Amino acid sequence: MYRRAAKEQSNKTLYFITSNKGKAKEAKEKFSDIKINIIQRDIGYPEIQADTLEEVAFFGAEYVQKKFNFPFILEDAGLFIDALNGFPGVYSAYVYYKIGCSGILRLLQNFDDNRYATFKSIYAYCEPNKKPIIFSGECLGTISKKEIGNFGFGFDPIFIPKDVSKTFAQMKTEEKNKISHRGKSIDKLKDFFKNL
Amino acid sequence: MYRRAAKEQSNKTLYFITSNKGKAKEAKEKFSDIKINIIQRDIGYPEIQADTLEEVAFFGAEYVQKKFNFPFILEDAGLFIDALNGFPGVYSAYVYYKIGCSGILRLLQNFDDNRYATFKSIYAYCEPNKKPIIFSGECLGTISKKEIGNFGFGFDPIFIPKDVSKTFAQMKTEEKNKISHRGKSIDKLKDFFKNL
Repeated sequence: MYRRAAKEQSNKTLYFITSNKGKAKEAKEKFSDIKINIIQRDIGYPEIQADTLEEVAFFGAEYVQKKFNFPFILEDAGLFIDALNGFPGVYSAYVYYKIGCSGILRLLQNFDDNRYATFKSIYAYCEPNKKPIIFSGECLGTISKKEIGNFGFGFDPIFIPKDVSKTFAQMKTEEKNKISHRGKSIDKLKDFFKNL
Repeated sequence: MYRRAAKEQSNKTLYFITSNKGKAKEAKEKFSDIKINIIQRDIGYPEIQADTLEEVAFFGAEYVQKKFNFPFILEDAGLFIDALNGFPGVYSAYVYYKIGCSGILRLLQNFDDNRYATFKSIYAYCEPNKKPIIFSGECLGTISKKEIGNFGFGFDPIFIPKDVSKTFAQMKTEEKNKISHRGKSIDKLKDFFKNL
């Protein structure tokens, strides 16, 4: 196990601490042309209750750092809805699981004038014994009046990016990644590695 | 500082790790007749994102234990609504802050037949170098159709305890504590100390 990890390390390996295979695959594709090999590690870390994704990512990164002695990345994302004071925010995964897109539509039914929302993504990059470095990406948009589209996951069927006339769930992965919050944060992370 | 802490300790002191003065006061009154002196310490601890209050309390207690060398208690509570799959649950404080009682009423507006909900409270008691011990209390009830009452806090104005015809927010503290989730969990905690 150690020898395998050491070999991966010599080939410019970057570990992605996540349980989400889709995210890992996306990062792997993104980094293939700069010769960084992304390897998923589902070792788990606590996500704290906090106001910002930055706090969640920072706490998670410092937790992982204590027991994992290689450079790694992790990611957290959320949907922040203006009329709901930023809800569901850092708890988006939980809220989606509990009340779904339909719950959000019910909460917004009397908010015809203000359906503005922002999808945010934070990547944290962490080396042993160093402070985590944060890369953020945002995608402005509005919440639709009903669920539309079958692609993507989570709140994608109700999020219409700014200057676009369809939801995230009506876009294939490549199209979505060009404008999405996570597409932007991972681009910043990639630029960081290019300039190292 | 150390001498003061040591003196409190010899007088059967129990520290309550909380930022909530009301909770500390409630515990102080409850424990006065068994000669345990409750002292509030607002030293803060991370609340993790989890499915159950037990997990949140356990993680918090183990975190505090690492830097606080005296016996202490902490408490976490939440409102679990049946028709919303347990939402807002462990995130009740955050959800209240973001969407309030009115948000919950909007989410439940088409659920006339199933407005069942449970308020839960968990106390964790922790001694140095020992596993935290958990004491739980529940209060069954339903969610009202509108906000009623001015006492209490949080979701009290929309929670009607079982076999009662008014909300928690229509009850004074003493009346509420006799049937409330936190009243029950703290009674169990008190019984534990009586039997030590």
